[in-house]
Amino acid sequence: MPRNVFEKFDDAAVVNKLTGITPSVAVHIPWDKADYVKLKKHAAGLGLKVGAVNPNLFQDDDYMLGSVCHPDARVRRKAVQHLKECCQIMKDTGSDLLSLWFADGTNYPGQDDLRRRKHNMQEALALAYAAMPKNARMILEYKFFEPAFYHTDVPDWGFSLLMCQKLGERAQVLVDTGHHALGTNVEHIVAILIDEHRLGGFHFNSRKYADDDLIVGSTNAYEIFLIFANILAARFGNTDKASKACAEAIAYMVDQSHVIEPKIPAMLRSVLNIQTNWARALMINWKKLHKMQQAGDVLGAEAEVREAFEQDTLPLLQAWREEKGLPADPMQAFLKSGYQKKVSVRGKGGASW
Amino acid sequence: MPRNVFEKFDDAAVVNKLTGITPSVAVHIPWDKADYVKLKKHAAGLGLKVGAVNPNLFQDDDYMLGSVCHPDARVRRKAVQHLKECCQIMKDTGSDLLSLWFADGTNYPGQDDLRRRKHNMQEALALAYAAMPKNARMILEYKFFEPAFYHTDVPDWGFSLLMCQKLGERAQVLVDTGHHALGTNVEHIVAILIDEHRLGGFHFNSRKYADDDLIVGSTNAYEIFLIFANILAARFGNTDKASKACAEAIAYMVDQSHVIEPKIPAMLRSVLNIQTNWARALMINWKKLHKMQQAGDVLGAEAEVREAFEQDTLPLLQAWREEKGLPADPMQAFLKSGYQKKVSVRGKGGASW
Amino acid sequence: MPRNVFEKFDDAAVVNKLTGITPSVAVHIPWDKADYVKLKKHAAGLGLKVGAVNPNLFQDDDYMLGSVCHPDARVRRKAVQHLKECCQIMKDTGSDLLSLWFADGTNYPGQDDLRRRKHNMQEALALAYAAMPKNARMILEYKFFEPAFYHTDVPDWGFSLLMCQKLGERAQVLVDTGHHALGTNVEHIVAILIDEHRLGGFHFNSRKYADDDLIVGSTNAYEIFLIFANILAARFGNTDKASKACAEAIAYMVDQSHVIEPKIPAMLRSVLNIQTNWARALMINWKKLHKMQQAGDVLGAEAEVREAFEQDTLPLLQAWREEKGLPADPMQAFLKSGYQKKVSVRGKGGASW
Amino acid sequence: MPRNVFEKFDDAAVVNKLTGITPSVAVHIPWDKADYVKLKKHAAGLGLKVGAVNPNLFQDDDYMLGSVCHPDARVRRKAVQHLKECCQIMKDTGSDLLSLWFADGTNYPGQDDLRRRKHNMQEALALAYAAMPKNARMILEYKFFEPAFYHTDVPDWGFSLLMCQKLGERAQVLVDTGHHALGTNVEHIVAILIDEHRLGGFHFNSRKYADDDLIVGSTNAYEIFLIFANILAARFGNTDKASKACAEAIAYMVDQSHVIEPKIPAMLRSVLNIQTNWARALMINWKKLHKMQQAGDVLGAEAEVREAFEQDTLPLLQAWREEKGLPADPMQAFLKSGYQKKVSVRGKGGASW
Repeated sequence: MPRNVFEKFDDAAVVNKLTGITPSVAVHIPWDKADYVKLKKHAAGLGLKVGAVNPNLFQDDDYMLGSVCHPDARVRRKAVQHLKECCQIMKDTGSDLLSLWFADGTNYPGQDDLRRRKHNMQEALALAYAAMPKNARMILEYKFFEPAFYHTDVPDWGFSLLMCQKLGERAQVLVDTGHHALGTNVEHIVAILIDEHRLGGFHFNSRKYADDDLIVGSTNAYEIFLIFANILAARFGNTDKASKACAEAIAYMVDQSHVIEPKIPAMLRSVLNIQTNWARALMINWKKLHKMQQAGDVLGAEAEVREAFEQDTLPLLQAWREEKGLPADPMQAFLKSGYQKKVSVRGKGGASW
Repeated sequence: MPRNVFEKFDDAAVVNKLTGITPSVAVHIPWDKADYVKLKKHAAGLGLKVGAVNPNLFQDDDYMLGSVCHPDARVRRKAVQHLKECCQIMKDTGSDLLSLWFADGTNYPGQDDLRRRKHNMQEALALAYAAMPKNARMILEYKFFEPAFYHTDVPDWGFSLLMCQKLGERAQVLVDTGHHALGTNVEHIVAILIDEHRLGGFHFNSRKYADDDLIVGSTNAYEIFLIFANILAARFGNTDKASKACAEAIAYMVDQSHVIEPKIPAMLRSVLNIQTNWARALMINWKKLHKMQQAGDVLGAEAEVREAFEQDTLPLLQAWREEKGLPADPMQAFLKSGYQKKVSVRGKGGASW
Repeated sequence: MPRNVFEKFDDAAVVNKLTGITPSVAVHIPWDKADYVKLKKHAAGLGLKVGAVNPNLFQDDDYMLGSVCHPDARVRRKAVQHLKECCQIMKDTGSDLLSLWFADGTNYPGQDDLRRRKHNMQEALALAYAAMPKNARMILEYKFFEPAFYHTDVPDWGFSLLMCQKLGERAQVLVDTGHHALGTNVEHIVAILIDEHRLGGFHFNSRKYADDDLIVGSTNAYEIFLIFANILAARFGNTDKASKACAEAIAYMVDQSHVIEPKIPAMLRSVLNIQTNWARALMINWKKLHKMQQAGDVLGAEAEVREAFEQDTLPLLQAWREEKGLPADPMQAFLKSGYQKKVSVRGKGGASW
Repeated sequence: MPRNVFEKFDDAAVVNKLTGITPSVAVHIPWDKADYVKLKKHAAGLGLKVGAVNPNLFQDDDYMLGSVCHPDARVRRKAVQHLKECCQIMKDTGSDLLSLWFADGTNYPGQDDLRRRKHNMQEALALAYAAMPKNARMILEYKFFEPAFYHTDVPDWGFSLLMCQKLGERAQVLVDTGHHALGTNVEHIVAILIDEHRLGGFHFNSRKYADDDLIVGSTNAYEIFLIFANILAARFGNTDKASKACAEAIAYMVDQSHVIEPKIPAMLRSVLNIQTNWARALMINWKKLHKMQQAGDVLGAEAEVREAFEQDTLPLLQAWREEKGLPADPMQAFLKSGYQKKVSVRGKGGASW
């Protein structure tokens, strides 16, 4: 594990050099507190930039019953102050994304007034929205359950969208693939949000049951593929300008927890799984698909999409990498590089990605 | 089972006479097609009125791939025509509620374009909204899954609310208690929708797993109680005028399927379970609760709500019934009335409630 | 749809001729009642044989509160009588599989005594087991929920196994891929049952939420692949004789409901999806995998399995088909064959597969 | 929070003195390591005894890929050694319950061989079983998911029962109410296990989604009531001797995590909720219920059970407490006792209950 935010950027640069598709790194405040001028420079030197800025409104004991939704105005003010601090860090680092996730919620029926908490959140978000750099976007994450167990204040895309509508056009929804009820059709949510021009970004990961934060694409790669298919349909299919623009501006992030596997290879694996499924989704013939859909050819349309997923896109990706001067097999290149050995001197523990 | 809509109203009148709290009955078109002038009169003679009008857009073979979302414009036009027909029936019967549930969805990834289906629905709903009687409301039901298995076009409250926002103030969300993913906090959705002044009505029923349509209150009465607690908080707690008005105008409906138990007693049981839990929710002391919530007294606030649920409100309800000239035990009164025997001559089968 | 069991075998023969891997067809009694000597001959003439015999213990009104678990001894006797009738049909048709699924369960807490129902089932199964042809197997299906909504009498593999243990070695568990709680690891159940030598067969289908009975492999092909990987590990990996024998004797069946797509192509699609994922699972290098597992190489072992799934096995399958004298693309061959047109004269409705 | 196991027993004694129904306290090794002779004496002085002994096989880094199921024999031996150590502690403290929960599982498909892990567990459990004091029982807990995310080695009651069958009669299943898939009928599992004489004990808690470990009875008290109803049916209904004996020997434990509420009142609340629902379940008239079940009176049988739950048993419980010389309202008595203030000098952190 990296011991500080500078080492975190060092590790991320390794992944970017091997894959060519991970040019920015999110920071979490206060975990990644640093001299931000120095950090920006350090990133630039590695060919990276600072991505989303993530406030932390759950670690402090004051936030035990909530942060921006807390019944006590003092705690809410403290939370808003931290949000404003993060807006300043955006300015310092050149970040144009404020990425918000709230651990706010309750554990027991009756514990707090659900509508009053909603009002409290609306107020706080409006203050944060006003404090953001011009042209920056706020992306608001939802989570079906956990760490609060009876209700979470932002439980689903519907609530997140509702907040964004009240704020303005630069407020959008963040979809974390693991934050849904079992059985949820996530790609449908993606399609709806694009159509409303409110899909701001993703946190990618996999899960079997709850918010397991496993390597993306390791439990059900078809879901990731279908998410990409809906994004690409808005970019290359029969679509309107605004939806296309929304689909082109999506921020893609990996948000995982590598408990039993080494961190950098796990991140490489994740990035490669994303790329593989993106490449597969590019194989869909939108015109052909459209025709079969209009004709009600259920099996034909299903096959057009599924067969794109079943293709082996590895040769294609290897050719692309060669063209870009990248290693054909980034994982093997990493394992041979000796980097893992180099970072193991850091010892255990330290800051997370 | 009643053999036609007139017998259906006869049966409903029995429940209303015994409980005093079920004054209106929904009709489903075309199942309940009738001479509507005659039906309105028949209802009035029984002390009832026609409640919500429910179109049926799933029985016809044409709707196999959808109704208002169908890829074929011909089918969509046919669906809109039926919606307009139902608006006319509202005028004929004096109904002021158009209750919409769409079985629209797909069974396979790729089968249809999710965003195009959304556009199709928006168009159709706008036409139906325009055709409604003045002052009437449209209530739009959502359903997490089924009968479509890959995606349903109106999967959750967020989507239903989005459609309503595009239509106008007289479009509201209908919450069916069985139409949620497992683990969903339904009372939170209720609170959010009231706060947006968009909660139009309920379909009550119980379930253990999917859309089981069991007798409301038979598997987890506490959920129904907590839904009522959130409605009553908006009516009697610390609230704003518009939320209060929304909470006062909610349409309460029972939507169940009695497969193994006799129909009229099952409906009586349902109505009594609703009344019992409403009475319990009335026992909450809002001022006391508010104070404990503000003070962060988690166990105190939880106890105030749970202990209201644990009270035996039967003596209170019996006193209320006596005052109204109703039987103290409506179920016993029904069983002794001989009505069950009377309707059993109808034979099996027939129209549903 | 086929109009009778003979046409059903005709259709199945088409699928077998095109794919070469579907040599037997299950029958459902009483739906497929026929002159069984004639049926056996008809099947043989088509290169088929009669597979599992399936009793029906849910259609009759008498079974509303259960069949073998019913509180009334008269109904239980009737159910056992039907089970014995099916054992006779096994003898008549040469079937060696009695495939049991019970719709038994309750809708409400308290409705019946759960332990007494268990005793009733044990008694009935013992009588059926004794009536089976020598050397025939009984396979007992479990289902997490539905059509009973509060409890189902055989809810999971644990209960099914418990019944089998009480019966004898020729009683085994039937796994229907759609009959599990969301989030269940089905391949783990498969591994456990093989290890106990009690995995008798599969009903294949896909689902997103409940028992959707969609085309197998259309929503999450990786699950089917992992099921096959666990079966092949018992056949070709480091294993004991009895587990290997169990894995070799598994009965594979498709149990789906094609509501919006044409029936024969849907069945072809299903069989091809099964074959594709079986071929992929054959690509796993068991020795290499074993080594990485023993070394605790989490990412290496995961990659060995996932990369087998990601391979394009189409060329391999086409070569195999050519060798067997089968069409390289069975679906295209069917569409060109004119068979669909031929069967469409049958009209709608009729017996199910 | 108590700072050591002696203070933990002090706190537990307060709950026992106020309620009269919590005479034993579980210990977790190594968290509660102590001079066991001294601990046994301390407990006796407080009117308590040492309940179940719980090994910990997940905290040590060695157990990252499992304990008794680990691919490496060295780690498995270490785990067995700890199990034997706990058997010795049972002898030292007079405990007659070895309570086992394994965090063993995998995070990724392919990570390990599922059947080999099963064999490893069987071997280890046999060694632990042999090391227990004579007459002591082993209770084996299952958990549907978490902390392992792809598969957990003991995922359900079926697997736990299978292990117990291989061990001997003194091995039984432990049911933790929060360790099931959503929608699971837990009381059915309870009934099955009693009927097999293999229900050893409970870990009580509540949850809305996953393993939330909230106060038992706070989210769905009806489930706890129905569990008790099935236990009482085996004790007082129409039952056999062995099932009755099993039901009488069940070990009841509270296993919760109080994150936002004070610990001792939360435990009091839990114990009172258990007692309230036990008292309600005692109100069921088994003979009357049996008759209605046999007659197929669905609504009558449902009412007999539900109405027992709806009764206000508070007066009854208060009378019972008075008789026993206990405070009529244990929670109020605690709040007035000044004990909370006394323990608050301990500071934050410390050993868990």
